[in-house]
Amino acid sequence: MRHNAITTTILFLLVLCPFLMSAQDSRPDAKSAVEQVLRDQVAAWNRRDLEGFMSGYWNSPDLIFFSGAQKTSGWQSTLERYRARYQGEGREMGKLEFSDLSIQELAPNAAYVLGEFHLTTSDGKTPHGLFTLIFRKFPEGWKIVHDHTSAAP
Amino acid sequence: MRHNAITTTILFLLVLCPFLMSAQDSRPDAKSAVEQVLRDQVAAWNRRDLEGFMSGYWNSPDLIFFSGAQKTSGWQSTLERYRARYQGEGREMGKLEFSDLSIQELAPNAAYVLGEFHLTTSDGKTPHGLFTLIFRKFPEGWKIVHDHTSAAP
Repeated sequence: MRHNAITTTILFLLVLCPFLMSAQDSRPDAKSAVEQVLRDQVAAWNRRDLEGFMSGYWNSPDLIFFSGAQKTSGWQSTLERYRARYQGEGREMGKLEFSDLSIQELAPNAAYVLGEFHLTTSDGKTPHGLFTLIFRKFPEGWKIVHDHTSAAP
Repeated sequence: MRHNAITTTILFLLVLCPFLMSAQDSRPDAKSAVEQVLRDQVAAWNRRDLEGFMSGYWNSPDLIFFSGAQKTSGWQSTLERYRARYQGEGREMGKLEFSDLSIQELAPNAAYVLGEFHLTTSDGKTPHGLFTLIFRKFPEGWKIVHDHTSAAP
């Protein structure tokens, strides 16, 4: 009986070992997963795919988007705001770049990102500014639950 | 032997019970601790105590403060920015109020806050805007490690 219990415990730990190790490894993976979301967003923006860009955001009415002092609530309203602003009459999306990215993990399922955005439009203008993003990990992957963006005047 | 093991297990769970329950209760505590930091900041601001206001921020060169599209790094530089902006020649701090606060806990030691600020100055102006704060819990308490503030134009 005693030996059986010890054998069971050892077998249990051996079976658990890879999972315990992969849990420890989650930190670098979280950072690169978040970085990949941002890379995918930039790529989507630069092929004028606003829905693709928006797939980096949490598809929820609880998504909160701050642009300057303007608050937008919900994924759908955020998409509509982007559409009006960048795909409306006489508008253009331009070429998007992110720089000076800092990704900080707060928990295995939460992180925030600070960075700069730079747009280059065909008329030679270069709108730019700073952003803060809060990311949470969902079963479908890492998504932005809050975006605070400020453009330079 | 068998009975002893069961008794030990029951005793162990009974001893553990208050700790398990207090761990579950940590969420409202975190929210109210963060709320208290904000209340203390507003009170300090309104008695023109900028150092008191700044004690809500992480006293570190790694504090990152975004105001509009302007980035300030470090606690000391953030204090100096506030001094120049609100205590300089011909400047005033005004009366500060926060509203529409949303405090979201991300982990037992991390949270973020969304809110609106409203200042009322003696000339009747009412500067206002939105802020996003990232809080982390340190041995000395909950502190803002990142502030992103956007004033309405």
